[in-house]
Amino acid sequence: MVRWEPNPRGRLQEAALALYGEHGFENTTVAEIAERAGLTERTFFRHYADKREVLFDGADAFTEAFVGTVANAPAPEAPIDAVTAGLLAAAALIASREFARQRQAIIAASPELQERELSKFASLSTSLADTLRERGLDEPAATLTSELATAVFRVAFERWIEESEDRDLSQLIRESLDQLRAVTAGA
Amino acid sequence: MVRWEPNPRGRLQEAALALYGEHGFENTTVAEIAERAGLTERTFFRHYADKREVLFDGADAFTEAFVGTVANAPAPEAPIDAVTAGLLAAAALIASREFARQRQAIIAASPELQERELSKFASLSTSLADTLRERGLDEPAATLTSELATAVFRVAFERWIEESEDRDLSQLIRESLDQLRAVTAGA
Repeated sequence: MVRWEPNPRGRLQEAALALYGEHGFENTTVAEIAERAGLTERTFFRHYADKREVLFDGADAFTEAFVGTVANAPAPEAPIDAVTAGLLAAAALIASREFARQRQAIIAASPELQERELSKFASLSTSLADTLRERGLDEPAATLTSELATAVFRVAFERWIEESEDRDLSQLIRESLDQLRAVTAGA
Repeated sequence: MVRWEPNPRGRLQEAALALYGEHGFENTTVAEIAERAGLTERTFFRHYADKREVLFDGADAFTEAFVGTVANAPAPEAPIDAVTAGLLAAAALIASREFARQRQAIIAASPELQERELSKFASLSTSLADTLRERGLDEPAATLTSELATAVFRVAFERWIEESEDRDLSQLIRESLDQLRAVTAGA
């Protein structure tokens, strides 16, 4: 008789996050994650390519929401407005501030994970620039706009996970966009 | 009798660039670089920690020129103007377009080198944000401004090394800054 185990991805993620927090990312093995989750290593590898990927589970959905919203924004909209809509759509997918805090502390402790995170953001920025060009925005405006957008997200997100912060991520994104306009208008 | 070999760094760099171009970064060893340069492996490691670092030789000087200029900019200057001065000072250190083109082609072919490059830019951005905060700029404006500045540099630099491009890097930086203002003003 095979026992049905619901939500293996979520359980693997929870187990990994707990173990990375307790022993550090480098000192945790896939076998330990699977064991903690009550699953097999084979099940782990059916869901994740490696132990880094557990921490980037939502990255594709995030990119899809972001870029998809920009692609489908009404045509006359200014690029920065389309990008703002994309940022807010993607941000809406990030549900748990506590999970985000734990995850970020683990990434901050590992150069390998920091590099992976930077490279995920770089891919996001490239997809976004492609989409902006398809919407008729020229270079270098397309690449600049996409770099701005990812910078705005990173800054807002870092504030959002600060212990003292209780405003919504969407509000912090809007504030960062306002700051961006103030900073560039200063010249 | 010890023969004096002038400019070992430059010769190692030239040898490495040639070999990475011919055989790929992954397939080149430190021993081969040293041999091509007519030097020993020991000499190589006196100058560079590993074979990646040969490609990032000027990164510290670049950061120093950039951040140092921002730190010393006259106090009443708007942050974006201080940052522009820093960008132009750092760009002035990049002398050879042909070297930059070859180097960038090698980096583009290696995920490992791309990650290193992203992480160098992230460090630059962090130093710059620290400096802007020391100059009295609050967060998130300091981090946003430093992210903008590195984005402007990357975009201008990528255009500068295009085969068809013959404008100066400083001119392309100014144009990217203008674009940035146009894009953010659009909202």
